Amino acid sequence: MAVIDINADLGEGFGIWELGDDLALLDVITSANVACGFHAGDPSIMRRVCAAAVERGVTIGAQVSYRDLAGFGRREIDVPAPELTAEVLYQIAALDGIARAEGGRVAYVKPHGALYNRAVRDTEQAGAVAEAVRAYDPSLPLLTLGDSALRDVADGLTVVTECFADRAYTPSGRLVSRREPGAVIHDRDTVARRAVQMATEGTVTAVDGGEIVLNARSMCVHGDTPGAVELARSVRSALTEAGVVLESFA
Amino acid sequence: MAVIDINADLGEGFGIWELGDDLALLDVITSANVACGFHAGDPSIMRRVCAAAVERGVTIGAQVSYRDLAGFGRREIDVPAPELTAEVLYQIAALDGIARAEGGRVAYVKPHGALYNRAVRDTEQAGAVAEAVRAYDPSLPLLTLGDSALRDVADGLTVVTECFADRAYTPSGRLVSRREPGAVIHDRDTVARRAVQMATEGTVTAVDGGEIVLNARSMCVHGDTPGAVELARSVRSALTEAGVVLESFA
Amino acid sequence: MAVIDINADLGEGFGIWELGDDLALLDVITSANVACGFHAGDPSIMRRVCAAAVERGVTIGAQVSYRDLAGFGRREIDVPAPELTAEVLYQIAALDGIARAEGGRVAYVKPHGALYNRAVRDTEQAGAVAEAVRAYDPSLPLLTLGDSALRDVADGLTVVTECFADRAYTPSGRLVSRREPGAVIHDRDTVARRAVQMATEGTVTAVDGGEIVLNARSMCVHGDTPGAVELARSVRSALTEAGVVLESFA
Amino acid sequence: MAVIDINADLGEGFGIWELGDDLALLDVITSANVACGFHAGDPSIMRRVCAAAVERGVTIGAQVSYRDLAGFGRREIDVPAPELTAEVLYQIAALDGIARAEGGRVAYVKPHGALYNRAVRDTEQAGAVAEAVRAYDPSLPLLTLGDSALRDVADGLTVVTECFADRAYTPSGRLVSRREPGAVIHDRDTVARRAVQMATEGTVTAVDGGEIVLNARSMCVHGDTPGAVELARSVRSALTEAGVVLESFA
Repeated sequence: MAVIDINADLGEGFGIWELGDDLALLDVITSANVACGFHAGDPSIMRRVCAAAVERGVTIGAQVSYRDLAGFGRREIDVPAPELTAEVLYQIAALDGIARAEGGRVAYVKPHGALYNRAVRDTEQAGAVAEAVRAYDPSLPLLTLGDSALRDVADGLTVVTECFADRAYTPSGRLVSRREPGAVIHDRDTVARRAVQMATEGTVTAVDGGEIVLNARSMCVHGDTPGAVELARSVRSALTEAGVVLESFA
Repeated sequence: MAVIDINADLGEGFGIWELGDDLALLDVITSANVACGFHAGDPSIMRRVCAAAVERGVTIGAQVSYRDLAGFGRREIDVPAPELTAEVLYQIAALDGIARAEGGRVAYVKPHGALYNRAVRDTEQAGAVAEAVRAYDPSLPLLTLGDSALRDVADGLTVVTECFADRAYTPSGRLVSRREPGAVIHDRDTVARRAVQMATEGTVTAVDGGEIVLNARSMCVHGDTPGAVELARSVRSALTEAGVVLESFA
Repeated sequence: MAVIDINADLGEGFGIWELGDDLALLDVITSANVACGFHAGDPSIMRRVCAAAVERGVTIGAQVSYRDLAGFGRREIDVPAPELTAEVLYQIAALDGIARAEGGRVAYVKPHGALYNRAVRDTEQAGAVAEAVRAYDPSLPLLTLGDSALRDVADGLTVVTECFADRAYTPSGRLVSRREPGAVIHDRDTVARRAVQMATEGTVTAVDGGEIVLNARSMCVHGDTPGAVELARSVRSALTEAGVVLESFA
Repeated sequence: MAVIDINADLGEGFGIWELGDDLALLDVITSANVACGFHAGDPSIMRRVCAAAVERGVTIGAQVSYRDLAGFGRREIDVPAPELTAEVLYQIAALDGIARAEGGRVAYVKPHGALYNRAVRDTEQAGAVAEAVRAYDPSLPLLTLGDSALRDVADGLTVVTECFADRAYTPSGRLVSRREPGAVIHDRDTVARRAVQMATEGTVTAVDGGEIVLNARSMCVHGDTPGAVELARSVRSALTEAGVVLESFA
């Protein structure tokens, strides 16, 4: 029986500004990557999102980021490793305290944006992220790509693989860069079909037509693009219709 | 046998900027009010201060503040209560996580600067601070003045009274405003003598010559003014010479 | 022949976050209050809004604020006057430089949110704002209410009165507090009718039915509420149909 | 007759935090690189520094930076070029307005920290900085190294070369990396001697003993290290004793 988790980024507003439809997504996903105030999210938003996630039984993860509200955490920053560890530790702890006040807890950690990408290929910054998890609670799983530097530095930690139903994959199993045509798949049926294949067979068809093994335990859906919620809903429907059990990994 | 705690503000630098001599103060005090990143303090500083406090057996408290790096938390801000609660909760949790990573924990909460003053007289904001403590861990004591609105809103919480050896008191037991002459006492011997009186007799001589009952369990010393460390050291010496036991309240 | 200006707040996004429909409003208004980065607005947004305003011949004003991204400038902050003057000066200058790079210039100053309200009743902070304008360019008009402390401290400066077509007025000519019922008028026809009365007769009907003289040279429309652009368009249509000339005051 | 400018970074505090001794340095230098609020400096500090510089006849330059208070602008950030241009433009304009309010003006631009280093080798970010100067006032000189990508993208702009009396140079005329031993020269006499050689002969002795032509019109001295002011003073003394005329390039 196939089991998969659906995760999405939540709580990515700040102050008066909103982004995405958190409540709609909470009915689709099983894990919420909640922004911790460094690229988005403020304490009030964090509290509201945690309360809503707990109410719906959705697992809460810390979506940790560079300190970069102006750039939404999408710009790589050369933060020295010890500072980055302290910043990630701060974010996990802040969210965990808020989640616990609402009856939940942080159950995993996922880097956001530029830190996510950097941690996939830079062992120093990846190591800094891993070190923060180790310092806070080594039982917290880290969510990343199948091919990621985070695995090489995660001694003693659990690393969980995620996949993207709406992204094209290279023959070596990496994501096709967003700068290249066809990197993002918009057709709803195609995305749904790929999602089912990923969940039931653990594979995906790469851009050269070959099959790649992903064996992902979680599937990321996006929330902040036009039509995102509808796409996420159709992925969920396709998965449940195919008999896939939707369940958090954490 | 008289027992008192000595507390001071620590970790009040930010990034490259430093303030006060944290290591020197850690040898004087029994409780460290550690800045949590909203008026000062960044995750790296917080981690270093917590490690040093744990090493010396100094108790760690969360020095929570308005979000105001530019004004060092010294300007009152009309933050609505629910937002203030979320912000204080965020700060306590962030510091607690960092403290635990260093083998310690947050053992009490003390508002900083303008929030301290506001919480003394405004039950709405005081209530927001109390609510955050209640939500995070109702066993954490709150540190404030003997005459403070925080007491009126602290149902179910522990409130601990602090005194100031270098501040003049009005006949009603309040601090003389810093805008008035003589509000701050600079003479080292006078300050030391008053500290001993506060600790051994639980009283202080007010500006009109009368004696006031304070019964403070903690004494605040300052760390960021010229000669502050020397003044703090002489207070500590006078207390120990008078047989006062120095011990955290938490 | 009646002449009036229509002003609205623009450029109030930040980084990835958007607020209001700037381009739609630019076709309705004659003066754009552009956020300067302290409550909203970042340099890229400021540049885009200035370019669009210049292209359409809309006058640019500096919408200066407390430093408060987290609170969108809606929380009063006790900033000492000299610091507030420096902060307002900084904002005017930054926007003016960007506007000039796009072929325009800052032609007036309007405080935002909590600073607007504070400057209406607090001569110290009002004086700080006026002092910034005096230091930067005393020929820049200040936009405020008819009954405002800014007038009392504006020696040597030009103060321009603005009115609000969708707000109820007290018999003494002040705005009814938003906390009271009926403070904001939602009916489009009523708002349009009041706008025409304000522009052609210089008066408004207060909540007690009496007529008040406003003699406002500018009329503020809102941009960030549902239906705001449509309301603004109908105000503009009603004004032009009534033969009112729409023209900036600056 | 040899002529050279001495420049240093000023106004690098923030809020309550101070860095360096601005007033002491103003008696040594002829050009002040004033922080503009993005890595350090707040509007009040900027105003005080500008007033003091104008009083002493010291030329004011805009020390523009990445938006990075937490990292003091010392971490490279992958800011897209159009955003970087807008951010630099914002900073120059803000400082210029403040300088003018004090009777001065921004007379040149010098990138700070990580942006300085990045602009030396990355034509895209260098081009973004140049574009901001072009948009604000193409007559403002840019201060950089002799060998810098900024020169390649500065069409229509003036680029001025600066040298460092206390830094070792490679045979190809670049600065020896701070990570290598001997990169910074601490001996006061050696530094003074090198300063005189740079100013009078336009050359420096590289680490391999060879002479390199620098022809620098400005010499940078540091202000935020222990003994910095004394070192700067001895450089100035040595230069004036050698008959070098100290004069800003702008």
